[in-house]
Amino acid sequence: MSHNTFGHLFRVTTWGESHGPALGCVIDGCPPGIRFTLAEIQAFMDKRKPGQSRFVTQRREEDLVKVLSGVLPEDDGETLVTTGTPISMLIENTDQRSKDYGEIATRYRPGHADYAYDIKYGIRDYRGGGRSSARETAARVAAGALARKVVPGVIVRAALVQIGKIKINRDNWDWEQVDQNPFFAPDAAIVPVWEEYLDGIRKAGSSVGAVIEVVAEGVPAGLGAPIYAKLDQDIASNLMSINAVKGVEIGNGFGAAEITGEENADEMRMGNDGTPIFLSNHAGGILGGISTGQPVIARFAVKPTSSILTERLSIDKDGNNVSVRTKGRHDPCVGIRAVPIGEAMVACTIADHFLRDRGQNGKVR
Amino acid sequence: MSHNTFGHLFRVTTWGESHGPALGCVIDGCPPGIRFTLAEIQAFMDKRKPGQSRFVTQRREEDLVKVLSGVLPEDDGETLVTTGTPISMLIENTDQRSKDYGEIATRYRPGHADYAYDIKYGIRDYRGGGRSSARETAARVAAGALARKVVPGVIVRAALVQIGKIKINRDNWDWEQVDQNPFFAPDAAIVPVWEEYLDGIRKAGSSVGAVIEVVAEGVPAGLGAPIYAKLDQDIASNLMSINAVKGVEIGNGFGAAEITGEENADEMRMGNDGTPIFLSNHAGGILGGISTGQPVIARFAVKPTSSILTERLSIDKDGNNVSVRTKGRHDPCVGIRAVPIGEAMVACTIADHFLRDRGQNGKVR
Amino acid sequence: MSHNTFGHLFRVTTWGESHGPALGCVIDGCPPGIRFTLAEIQAFMDKRKPGQSRFVTQRREEDLVKVLSGVLPEDDGETLVTTGTPISMLIENTDQRSKDYGEIATRYRPGHADYAYDIKYGIRDYRGGGRSSARETAARVAAGALARKVVPGVIVRAALVQIGKIKINRDNWDWEQVDQNPFFAPDAAIVPVWEEYLDGIRKAGSSVGAVIEVVAEGVPAGLGAPIYAKLDQDIASNLMSINAVKGVEIGNGFGAAEITGEENADEMRMGNDGTPIFLSNHAGGILGGISTGQPVIARFAVKPTSSILTERLSIDKDGNNVSVRTKGRHDPCVGIRAVPIGEAMVACTIADHFLRDRGQNGKVR
Amino acid sequence: MSHNTFGHLFRVTTWGESHGPALGCVIDGCPPGIRFTLAEIQAFMDKRKPGQSRFVTQRREEDLVKVLSGVLPEDDGETLVTTGTPISMLIENTDQRSKDYGEIATRYRPGHADYAYDIKYGIRDYRGGGRSSARETAARVAAGALARKVVPGVIVRAALVQIGKIKINRDNWDWEQVDQNPFFAPDAAIVPVWEEYLDGIRKAGSSVGAVIEVVAEGVPAGLGAPIYAKLDQDIASNLMSINAVKGVEIGNGFGAAEITGEENADEMRMGNDGTPIFLSNHAGGILGGISTGQPVIARFAVKPTSSILTERLSIDKDGNNVSVRTKGRHDPCVGIRAVPIGEAMVACTIADHFLRDRGQNGKVR
Repeated sequence: MSHNTFGHLFRVTTWGESHGPALGCVIDGCPPGIRFTLAEIQAFMDKRKPGQSRFVTQRREEDLVKVLSGVLPEDDGETLVTTGTPISMLIENTDQRSKDYGEIATRYRPGHADYAYDIKYGIRDYRGGGRSSARETAARVAAGALARKVVPGVIVRAALVQIGKIKINRDNWDWEQVDQNPFFAPDAAIVPVWEEYLDGIRKAGSSVGAVIEVVAEGVPAGLGAPIYAKLDQDIASNLMSINAVKGVEIGNGFGAAEITGEENADEMRMGNDGTPIFLSNHAGGILGGISTGQPVIARFAVKPTSSILTERLSIDKDGNNVSVRTKGRHDPCVGIRAVPIGEAMVACTIADHFLRDRGQNGKVR
Repeated sequence: MSHNTFGHLFRVTTWGESHGPALGCVIDGCPPGIRFTLAEIQAFMDKRKPGQSRFVTQRREEDLVKVLSGVLPEDDGETLVTTGTPISMLIENTDQRSKDYGEIATRYRPGHADYAYDIKYGIRDYRGGGRSSARETAARVAAGALARKVVPGVIVRAALVQIGKIKINRDNWDWEQVDQNPFFAPDAAIVPVWEEYLDGIRKAGSSVGAVIEVVAEGVPAGLGAPIYAKLDQDIASNLMSINAVKGVEIGNGFGAAEITGEENADEMRMGNDGTPIFLSNHAGGILGGISTGQPVIARFAVKPTSSILTERLSIDKDGNNVSVRTKGRHDPCVGIRAVPIGEAMVACTIADHFLRDRGQNGKVR
Repeated sequence: MSHNTFGHLFRVTTWGESHGPALGCVIDGCPPGIRFTLAEIQAFMDKRKPGQSRFVTQRREEDLVKVLSGVLPEDDGETLVTTGTPISMLIENTDQRSKDYGEIATRYRPGHADYAYDIKYGIRDYRGGGRSSARETAARVAAGALARKVVPGVIVRAALVQIGKIKINRDNWDWEQVDQNPFFAPDAAIVPVWEEYLDGIRKAGSSVGAVIEVVAEGVPAGLGAPIYAKLDQDIASNLMSINAVKGVEIGNGFGAAEITGEENADEMRMGNDGTPIFLSNHAGGILGGISTGQPVIARFAVKPTSSILTERLSIDKDGNNVSVRTKGRHDPCVGIRAVPIGEAMVACTIADHFLRDRGQNGKVR
Repeated sequence: MSHNTFGHLFRVTTWGESHGPALGCVIDGCPPGIRFTLAEIQAFMDKRKPGQSRFVTQRREEDLVKVLSGVLPEDDGETLVTTGTPISMLIENTDQRSKDYGEIATRYRPGHADYAYDIKYGIRDYRGGGRSSARETAARVAAGALARKVVPGVIVRAALVQIGKIKINRDNWDWEQVDQNPFFAPDAAIVPVWEEYLDGIRKAGSSVGAVIEVVAEGVPAGLGAPIYAKLDQDIASNLMSINAVKGVEIGNGFGAAEITGEENADEMRMGNDGTPIFLSNHAGGILGGISTGQPVIARFAVKPTSSILTERLSIDKDGNNVSVRTKGRHDPCVGIRAVPIGEAMVACTIADHFLRDRGQNGKVR
């Protein structure tokens, strides 16, 4: 398990479990001279923070980020400037209830990594999911907040587009809505529908999957490579590294399989200002692995959490047939909290490719 | 563009374009003592070879693999034994028709990488797609043939499960059928339907997308890691590195977003022989990034090729509005030839994780 | 500056400067099931700790290591067991005297990295050397302490063999002596000589270089690779990554250039127990990049610190000719404290190659 | 053995043995738009070519480089332009005399990698040294020839400065001399001395070591990083990856251990043209891991080859005590041919760090 690092020049290494004293990340390769404040980082952390509505886990943590290295403070007492050295970020774990996890210390939750961990490692930190706890993603969000600053002008946003079988109406898409509801829904009309549906899931102690869409605007044309190190390959890899993600697609994605070359072609015209205009964006902003300057669009599917109240058949560590139900705090739809995480992973990927193309020194100041 | 290498311990570097003298790969990290014959490699090459039916490009190449290093010949004159040193494989390009590519030297095909290449590199090998030619995948298939030998008992197979909107009937799935038809279809009943549909596409000079499913059986439990270096992450990354792939999913994939935790849970019972039995495989053989011993299942979507006979609006290198139609050889459904390629990429990924878990020396002999 | 990580499977990422709140490392790839105590780690930290004699910097820090992730505590309240997940170690900076560094904020110390930093980054943490402070090496020593546990039976020790032009008498070599004097000298007779010499250096506000020898016993035969990823190459790289190191050699090292093939050959005989015996060890335990089972021997040269009291000609940030003398705490011979650091780097290198050969899972428990 | 790749952005993967059909390399990450001719590459190959004097092995090969991918030919029929895709270079093996290697197929040459190979791999290509044959270095020289073109204005040269105990007189240093004698000696006066000495070694069937010095001028200031990814660390690593190298040093190297901080300091003054002048170069052009703009200076020690005519004690594959003498072609001083190899490795290292700093695209055209 030696690869808790992603990125080639903008490299992020995360560490930490749900029930240790803290978790965090080391960002290696951030160029020098980038200015940021803790408040800017914290704004993204707050989006991911649990306990903000009844539709996500009730674990409550402040998720305050400490920056331990790699920056010099400016005289205003708020601004930090990167020095080009590794940036260590730390987030304390403050709300740990180990007693909740008694039974699943020995019984494997069907659909959960419990069994796979024991097979691989022979030892398992069952408390709160251990390394695969959703808490690990706090470190990703912190890294993503900084990554955005590396690429001048880039805007990376995400929204929830599907819960269970219920999809948004794309004609209603309005980015303004995303922060106005507990689902990060870009479609105001879907909110009451999802509320009612998820209340049912929640009360049943059940869970359900979701689909998230990430859109990155202002990505310079020319990032990525034709095959291997494709920008879309690295986005797919980084999104797939998030817990519970089972599918990733770029632009039309699986929809591209269903259409003809005529339909899929994004036609081009020269704009009046001498820059090319694409008449559509089936490609999701990436052709042949390389960004075209159009918005980069990625979607990923999150499975329902396997921690549910309904009894399921399973085995225990000693090989006995048992049944398992997961008590304690539940996340009826873990996909909701994956929205800021998806944003962060795409932002990191773009920052990494930006540095590959432009170099690590002196480009951003 | 410095990452034409995939894998961490079983590392494959590919090189070559459609119109140079040759293409190939270097396999670094293959354990010593593995025995194989050129005929075994060639069997996989022949599956990928173009010109085998009217539904794929009519370019004809023998795709004979030469092994230039990393092996010792045994006395039988056929068997080669790996020595643990880099294995260089070379495939000559024999059927190059440069004259076919006149117009697209300057005009960007909509949906093709032409524009992105010029933006990034300022120079472009337009002949046959250059580096992003499907020919590059020959090197992957050669590497995959060897990768299978690294993991004792593993069987990696793939099949085409969808062309355009027409899906196979999964109840008809029969692996025996896959090599009996020009589509690698596991469903005999779909073959005449696809034939008729693709004949229409072909005659119209059009193209259409497809979905491929890869199934790996005999994968030892315990390969992969909880987050980052997840087996499914690396499979997704490697499949997404194939030309024209726009989506990847594991097990239920995007379908997992639509169901509840109860439905998605793969229940377990102890088998009579003391090994656990899973009652379903929604997870696609991977839980928490780690293989469980169940079949590993991945699917990927291939977009329709952008080389079509219908005129599309575009611009040229000098910024003029033009229209483009691609003459020359066509691939009505490039997804068909992606079947052996997907197999190869999954085989390489599994070999890589097998070595991470078991080490590079002395495990396979 | 995106490579503060060393190792391929046993990967160590360090972070932190002299004057931030803390420094530390993340160890990724440590196999599960390894038992250790903080006291075991601390024993190595204490060897590196400054302020222990008048011959090293008088900065005083406890250098207590906190382990923030990757372990489960056992019932004895002391033993920690690795789980296979990233191990984050943190060491607080407690003795920072920023006021000491006034003048060198703008004036470049000749022979120091000051000038190079400003040229590269345009921003520089001048406080205590910033990232290139010797404090960073505390994280390496912590990682090295754990690395030793990865390879059963390995013993990695180092000693100071030269200060300035004064070398030890190798006939006096006694490992027992190394911890009995402030120089890590293996030769008791050299101690008073070095004391007198270094007292002179110290009183003059001067500094002097040194040579350290690292010996690893119990290294299994077969680690490394013939060319590239040679065990000696990775040892050289990792030793050269230590501050102020200007040369590295293996076995006879530069001495090998002076002798003939007859002299340099390490002859072999079969031992009575059926294991081969080498009659000499000119190779330093590594032939063709691969360990032979003999002790692995490496040496490295540390230059004198450039922080000296004597005025030297230089320039300042604004391009003026100035002269510089460094006030504040001095290290008359930084090479002394490099002894435990060299040990740590060799231990990490061996652990990394051990895992490459044997795999990351299930080998050590 | 999965790391036959060096470099992070300018990545070179070599493959091939002495006795296969060919050897070569893949250069991945070379920026697009670099113009070169085969004749330019060949000039460096010819320097390394064996059989050019009685002081090196009598194996005769043309070492003609074929470029198989990654370039477009220009209209002059000579110039090749890089396209940014992987560049595959191939060199055929034409002079193989397998019959020479009979006895050493089973007997381990003392000081040679024979024993280590068998311990590690259990299989060994004994013919001509297999993978660790000096022939592998032909691929490095080819890569180095291209690397020089990546960094505008850089000049990388090397010279032999010591054979056995006989060193050149540095006061006589004249680069013009290096190509005027069979030793790459920069000191004309040493040539007859070395000739006489090496004639004795050669006639005795013996061998002797050597030291090579590499000097890179025109290296831009600011390449490298403070600790880890130090420019000197990567130079050391890459030089140590060459066969038979046992020591590496930068600038003063081991000499730095013998002097004081006052002596070692490279004082600075502002030049009349506003660029800083260093009054000495003890640091070898690198301070704190970062290039300063001064010449980069590295030295490495090559041990005597273990293939000698004198009988030495050893064991064989079956564990019997035997004696070994190596018949066939000999290299009395393999260090001589290491001169162009050292140049190539330093050139590749500098190109790699240049791209890390400046980015891979659009900098060199």
